[in-house]
Amino acid sequence: MPALSTNKISFVSSGTPQSTAAKAELIAKYGDYPPVEADVIVALGGDGFMLETLHTVMDRQIPVYGMNFGSVGFMMNDFDIEGLTQRLERAEPTQIHPLRMTATTKQGETHTALALNEVSLLRKSYQAAKIEILVDGKTRIDELICDGVLVATPAGSTAYNLSAQGPILPIEAPLLALTPISPFRPRRWRGAILSNRAEVTFRIREIDKRPVNAVADSLEIVDVLEVQISESRTHVVTLLFDPGHSLDERILNEQFDY
Amino acid sequence: MPALSTNKISFVSSGTPQSTAAKAELIAKYGDYPPVEADVIVALGGDGFMLETLHTVMDRQIPVYGMNFGSVGFMMNDFDIEGLTQRLERAEPTQIHPLRMTATTKQGETHTALALNEVSLLRKSYQAAKIEILVDGKTRIDELICDGVLVATPAGSTAYNLSAQGPILPIEAPLLALTPISPFRPRRWRGAILSNRAEVTFRIREIDKRPVNAVADSLEIVDVLEVQISESRTHVVTLLFDPGHSLDERILNEQFDY
Amino acid sequence: MPALSTNKISFVSSGTPQSTAAKAELIAKYGDYPPVEADVIVALGGDGFMLETLHTVMDRQIPVYGMNFGSVGFMMNDFDIEGLTQRLERAEPTQIHPLRMTATTKQGETHTALALNEVSLLRKSYQAAKIEILVDGKTRIDELICDGVLVATPAGSTAYNLSAQGPILPIEAPLLALTPISPFRPRRWRGAILSNRAEVTFRIREIDKRPVNAVADSLEIVDVLEVQISESRTHVVTLLFDPGHSLDERILNEQFDY
Amino acid sequence: MPALSTNKISFVSSGTPQSTAAKAELIAKYGDYPPVEADVIVALGGDGFMLETLHTVMDRQIPVYGMNFGSVGFMMNDFDIEGLTQRLERAEPTQIHPLRMTATTKQGETHTALALNEVSLLRKSYQAAKIEILVDGKTRIDELICDGVLVATPAGSTAYNLSAQGPILPIEAPLLALTPISPFRPRRWRGAILSNRAEVTFRIREIDKRPVNAVADSLEIVDVLEVQISESRTHVVTLLFDPGHSLDERILNEQFDY
Repeated sequence: MPALSTNKISFVSSGTPQSTAAKAELIAKYGDYPPVEADVIVALGGDGFMLETLHTVMDRQIPVYGMNFGSVGFMMNDFDIEGLTQRLERAEPTQIHPLRMTATTKQGETHTALALNEVSLLRKSYQAAKIEILVDGKTRIDELICDGVLVATPAGSTAYNLSAQGPILPIEAPLLALTPISPFRPRRWRGAILSNRAEVTFRIREIDKRPVNAVADSLEIVDVLEVQISESRTHVVTLLFDPGHSLDERILNEQFDY
Repeated sequence: MPALSTNKISFVSSGTPQSTAAKAELIAKYGDYPPVEADVIVALGGDGFMLETLHTVMDRQIPVYGMNFGSVGFMMNDFDIEGLTQRLERAEPTQIHPLRMTATTKQGETHTALALNEVSLLRKSYQAAKIEILVDGKTRIDELICDGVLVATPAGSTAYNLSAQGPILPIEAPLLALTPISPFRPRRWRGAILSNRAEVTFRIREIDKRPVNAVADSLEIVDVLEVQISESRTHVVTLLFDPGHSLDERILNEQFDY
Repeated sequence: MPALSTNKISFVSSGTPQSTAAKAELIAKYGDYPPVEADVIVALGGDGFMLETLHTVMDRQIPVYGMNFGSVGFMMNDFDIEGLTQRLERAEPTQIHPLRMTATTKQGETHTALALNEVSLLRKSYQAAKIEILVDGKTRIDELICDGVLVATPAGSTAYNLSAQGPILPIEAPLLALTPISPFRPRRWRGAILSNRAEVTFRIREIDKRPVNAVADSLEIVDVLEVQISESRTHVVTLLFDPGHSLDERILNEQFDY
Repeated sequence: MPALSTNKISFVSSGTPQSTAAKAELIAKYGDYPPVEADVIVALGGDGFMLETLHTVMDRQIPVYGMNFGSVGFMMNDFDIEGLTQRLERAEPTQIHPLRMTATTKQGETHTALALNEVSLLRKSYQAAKIEILVDGKTRIDELICDGVLVATPAGSTAYNLSAQGPILPIEAPLLALTPISPFRPRRWRGAILSNRAEVTFRIREIDKRPVNAVADSLEIVDVLEVQISESRTHVVTLLFDPGHSLDERILNEQFDY
């Protein structure tokens, strides 16, 4: 891979006092370009802000380097005012393909969205959700009675998927995790690891009595009737990490962090 | 235990066509008394309707015998028009103490409710909940980042608690199950089995950003700030089961139903 | 409970250099009585040595106070040369009933043993074990194909049982944990929580091809054919803990130690 | 893929009365060639016998088609005397790379073996094993106190690995499962999913007090000191399946078989 051009940096921050102050200090030292002219975006915040930032560059070929100002900084590098140019030059890229969600609502609207971590469904009322699960058009679970269900990328496998006790997946594995959230029936089903070429469809049963919302990363669609999820091969984002701290290494570490 | 007086039966039904028809047929055969005059209530429906019925008798000493017309009939006996008098005479009682929930909302209101199965909390938006957990006034988990958390009775341990991968508890065990729902941090915490004398308090953090609802069986309280849960020793309900099909036996069976 | 008479102490040690030196120092300060004349036994070692010591007093009414010199000190108090008399006076007792194991071997011998933590079975060769499981004489699992299976007391629920992903039980709960070790078929069975009045029987299938050993705490019986396990009501041991550090409190802590 | 030449069949059987009889009948109908001259081997037995058969062809380019005569037939096709030629012509191949195990014993001997399902370690006495785990030469777990630990291929992920609650892996995923067996410390570690390029090393601690055996599929090496495991790229076996019943499809089914 050729050395990354990092002459033109665009700084963005999550807006907390600390990240805002750091942004000002960094701009004074390294300059600042509008995102559309920049070679690289440097994002100051936590994982949530990084996800937001990545969504803004999903359609463009511009890498993002994060510095951590959040409680969880899984996708972030350590913060330091000094040495940024050198760090960017040496940074190692990790590429992530997002999931594409197509959700049809009870009202008949169709929404599409991209998700780098996961697409999740959760019941909206106290009534348990009833969801049919299809993989590649074939019904695999006729009716999952549950709080919800999710599909996660390897990058997202350490996030919500892990909370729902799904498996951690190596970042380069061509896989998706399909993981139930509080499955009631079938009561012992623990989910599946699917090929990243799989297309997953969720169909919601009894949507008036048992309404369900879908969330693509943090975009929420209320009252969904059907949700289709597959990996988008036409979108890709590039995260930059200091050598030895790649997302792959982090995910490996997370698996041994007991 | 002296033989139960079962001369006066009050029939109630969940209102489905089948249960309504069965109710009419049963009344024609056995008569029908108002609940306040009856010796026993016969409930026609599924577990959800049984829970509703039990809530209506929580303050009175009247047993409930269920006949199953639902998809899940864990607390129900088999349906049969014939032989009801003899079945009631031979039925074996199981007594259950409910949980008492005291919930304070964001608006400063206080709600109390009783729950035979569980008191559960679940996030209301896509934002993960942050919940402090205290047992007997002592903070045991400073901040659980999660979809939610629940406290279940032994009777409820095979319901929502089981979906959240909590333990099945024998009906006579003086215990409560405290079980997280999709715990994100601490990521490997799987809950605890507590004494039935324990008082559990949940305190919701950042309630504006991260709203949470509480549910006592099926009564939902929105936007809770703090929820206290303990077993009520002053309330008790009595379920009746055909010999050899007691709730205790059902819970044991459920543990070996793989 | 009347104050414990602690005038006559008998010291025992696990034999490591540190525990041996501590024993000598303690005897110089507090004196030493033969076990049969002592009011209390002070055991210097880790949990393994404590288990051994408790086995030696199983038939007598003499409490044991442990001071920790091991890697795991779940049943032990902190070590201190000073203040032992006062600590013993203030110590709080926890009583534990052991399991009684009756094991019949392939050769037709019968062995009985007591276990404070658990009775476990494990395959002896690379061949998976096939085990029938009966509770109170009723077959509950016709054939468990597995590495093994165990029955644990509440006191032992945090030991081997926890490794096999069994539930942690409060010390005062009248329960036993029945937990499979690497169950292959039925593949999703995760064990059961039983009444402490339950009698569990394990019958080994194909014992020539698939030999199995049984272990009661640390006593191993090779090539077992059938193993019966129930709580012994006629045996009891008494552990002493500094106030606020009872076994009950430790087990509660362990459940929140994530 | 060109059509498989299946003119010359070599039949092998597990030796049970049924499989022996079927073999005779098949030979009468289709003829029989010595394995070294055959185009394809047809194995009559269960998964255990299939594993044995695959081991005999590990060094040669000859595919194996199984017909099920065992209790578990995950790698087998249905038995039928008729139509074998056509079934072989239409069969779809699945290729599996084995693990290579290099085990050094306490006595200083070195053994190498290949394993298609898994390499597993298990304690040999009642003493828990203490095992250091390295991935690519880096210590990831300093000391796992456990019954044992295993590394499984995707093909083996539904076998012993599943019993130890490891993840089911799609057959084409370039992954290995590293799964602990009854982990005591670290008590909440549940294993890791590794790249199939990873080299895993297990080092046994205190081997005199805590002896451990290693098993590659069903070859047992006693008293191991160190075991190295990595995927062999130079060995491959080819299994044949009737269309729509490939190992990939079976593993997907297994994930939804609740």
